[in-house]
Amino acid sequence: MDRVAVVGAGLTRFGRRVDVGMNHMAWEAIKAALEDAGIEQKDVDFFAVGNTGVWSEEPLPAITVGEYAGLTPKGTMRVEAACATGSAAIRVAYQAIASGSARVALAVGVEKMYNSPTGAVVELIGRAGNYFWEFENFGLTFPGYYALYASAYMAKYEVKEEDLALVSVKNHYYGSFNPYAQFQKPVKLEDVMSSKYVAYPLKLLDSSPITDGAAAVVLADEESARKLTDTPVWIKSQGVASGSANLSKRQDFLGLPASVEAAAQAYRGAGITDPLKQIDVATVHDCFTIAEILAYEDLGFAKRGEGVQLIRDQQTYKDGIIPVNLDGGLKAKGHPIGATGAGMAVEAVKQLRGEAPPQRQATIRNGVALTHNVGGTGHYAYVTVYSL
Amino acid sequence: MDRVAVVGAGLTRFGRRVDVGMNHMAWEAIKAALEDAGIEQKDVDFFAVGNTGVWSEEPLPAITVGEYAGLTPKGTMRVEAACATGSAAIRVAYQAIASGSARVALAVGVEKMYNSPTGAVVELIGRAGNYFWEFENFGLTFPGYYALYASAYMAKYEVKEEDLALVSVKNHYYGSFNPYAQFQKPVKLEDVMSSKYVAYPLKLLDSSPITDGAAAVVLADEESARKLTDTPVWIKSQGVASGSANLSKRQDFLGLPASVEAAAQAYRGAGITDPLKQIDVATVHDCFTIAEILAYEDLGFAKRGEGVQLIRDQQTYKDGIIPVNLDGGLKAKGHPIGATGAGMAVEAVKQLRGEAPPQRQATIRNGVALTHNVGGTGHYAYVTVYSL
Repeated sequence: MDRVAVVGAGLTRFGRRVDVGMNHMAWEAIKAALEDAGIEQKDVDFFAVGNTGVWSEEPLPAITVGEYAGLTPKGTMRVEAACATGSAAIRVAYQAIASGSARVALAVGVEKMYNSPTGAVVELIGRAGNYFWEFENFGLTFPGYYALYASAYMAKYEVKEEDLALVSVKNHYYGSFNPYAQFQKPVKLEDVMSSKYVAYPLKLLDSSPITDGAAAVVLADEESARKLTDTPVWIKSQGVASGSANLSKRQDFLGLPASVEAAAQAYRGAGITDPLKQIDVATVHDCFTIAEILAYEDLGFAKRGEGVQLIRDQQTYKDGIIPVNLDGGLKAKGHPIGATGAGMAVEAVKQLRGEAPPQRQATIRNGVALTHNVGGTGHYAYVTVYSL
Repeated sequence: MDRVAVVGAGLTRFGRRVDVGMNHMAWEAIKAALEDAGIEQKDVDFFAVGNTGVWSEEPLPAITVGEYAGLTPKGTMRVEAACATGSAAIRVAYQAIASGSARVALAVGVEKMYNSPTGAVVELIGRAGNYFWEFENFGLTFPGYYALYASAYMAKYEVKEEDLALVSVKNHYYGSFNPYAQFQKPVKLEDVMSSKYVAYPLKLLDSSPITDGAAAVVLADEESARKLTDTPVWIKSQGVASGSANLSKRQDFLGLPASVEAAAQAYRGAGITDPLKQIDVATVHDCFTIAEILAYEDLGFAKRGEGVQLIRDQQTYKDGIIPVNLDGGLKAKGHPIGATGAGMAVEAVKQLRGEAPPQRQATIRNGVALTHNVGGTGHYAYVTVYSL
């Protein structure tokens, strides 16, 4: 298997982007990634487009994005893995190179959620659980799903709403140093606590926002990577797993089995036996504050029930034992569904290269970063390990 | 790069399948493919689900299909490449193995078009061109797009509607020997000619139908393939290309540049310099009769303007110079969008193994089969070469 490196990474500003259409937004990220890699469209052998399609203006987004970005007639496909769609796009581009089919491949994730021509965003997100059974019959929306997890975790481990809120405070703090983030203002604990309930015990400021945005990475085989850059960021491994579509079939609501499985695969592939010692910085899927705490445990940063202590002790801040979501996370950076995973990859690359603003740059000791991207409520999990 | 073989292939009956839901339909094909390979779900490392999502009951079809089929917690994603979606799913499974990430992977394509909860099929297919410009402004539907190609071809090469109709006669003839086909009755030239116009000069019997169906293939690396079967069918190469979303930007309406490019890649990869001599049997994307004739030329079976002569001379019948669509093609076998490309792979495997019914079994001399799967009107093209 050929080694594969990220040689270019680009991002749009995340937020409410009613100024441009989906294709243009994708192009902003692609352009930035191509420039970062120092290549042109003709140098790209294949591109994968991550887009859920749920909100799309166009039913063939890979084609319209490709044409707008000047990538036609390169080979392409659209991929979807719910909120892990961006990571699935990276997987396809990565394997195109690792299999020897391509030398340079591009993965772009894009989502336009505001001004959707197809319907109400919250209704459509609600369907990302189990549509025919839980959504249609019980009206369970997406915040409702994670509220079940939050309630179960709080009940079992004597955790308070204030504990969850600490995740929001951290992520908004780092978002304030990220010019690409949707929210760049810090919030106080009392702001989170006084925000309105979305689904008890989760409040507005426990929740990631509706976001427009795009992110792109250029991947290359070893020979091409060495020519293009002095700081290739290697994809060491990627784990991928799925979970039941039905929450009623989950064993408990204290973790996501798909995350545990994907992490085990990724750690095996990258030779990681002690994540706290070997990983310098992580981005995890904090679609709600509870999700970040569950991720600490699912990824082995803490034992079951002890993830909350990491945030209480500020151990997932920049100078803690395992810095998490120094870009603001889904919570403050934003969560443009199909782009989120690709945005995580961009952050991993910037951190490993030491290019983040000093207020949110992790100390890179081992040269290893991790991204954890969940689709649905653990329907999908993609865990990727990057290294210098 | 590891060699990759198809070791199992399965299909549902194509047609109007209002008796079952999408997940069950996918399972019928997966079950048949697993049994054909002699393996169980636990032996599958990764699965890719091809589904356009446009008509879906569930917004996360890869998850619900996987769970219904007992594949959870295996890694997965959904892929989409319009009518070439099934081939895109095969590409992802193929590269998962070729990259060394998986030893055994499954690709399934599935589409449920009847009883769609999301809207009128013809309107939704119409959007597979260029939604915002051509569809919204000119009302150009899908048959309308191909009618432009048919008109241009007829005008330039003095071709009659009767010539196009010959493709329908051939494909319905072979459909009559295919128990999985949607239409199993032969049609006469006068039947095609007297069928009503859908978009001049294309008539109802020039057009592929609305179809429900699923198809699946099990792929394996060389070591696993040798253990599992005595008749592995190797994926020799796959070409993939994209084309402009706008028909108004196409240079002419006499061929699909994406097909030409994808074929060139596939031929290069498989060492094919003389397709008529080296390929034993082909399935091509005959969504309309004109599309099959264009495919003859785009794939190098005939020079420009001479494709029509192949069908006039019955050279694409079973005993002709290059047998095409001996399963009935999209025209008679049916065209369940996301499943079509996977169904082509199943046909290639059955032909190479000599397992087709004698009335429609090609003579296998070189042990080479080709599949040609188009998305949109040349928005996507996937060309795959299989060999014994």
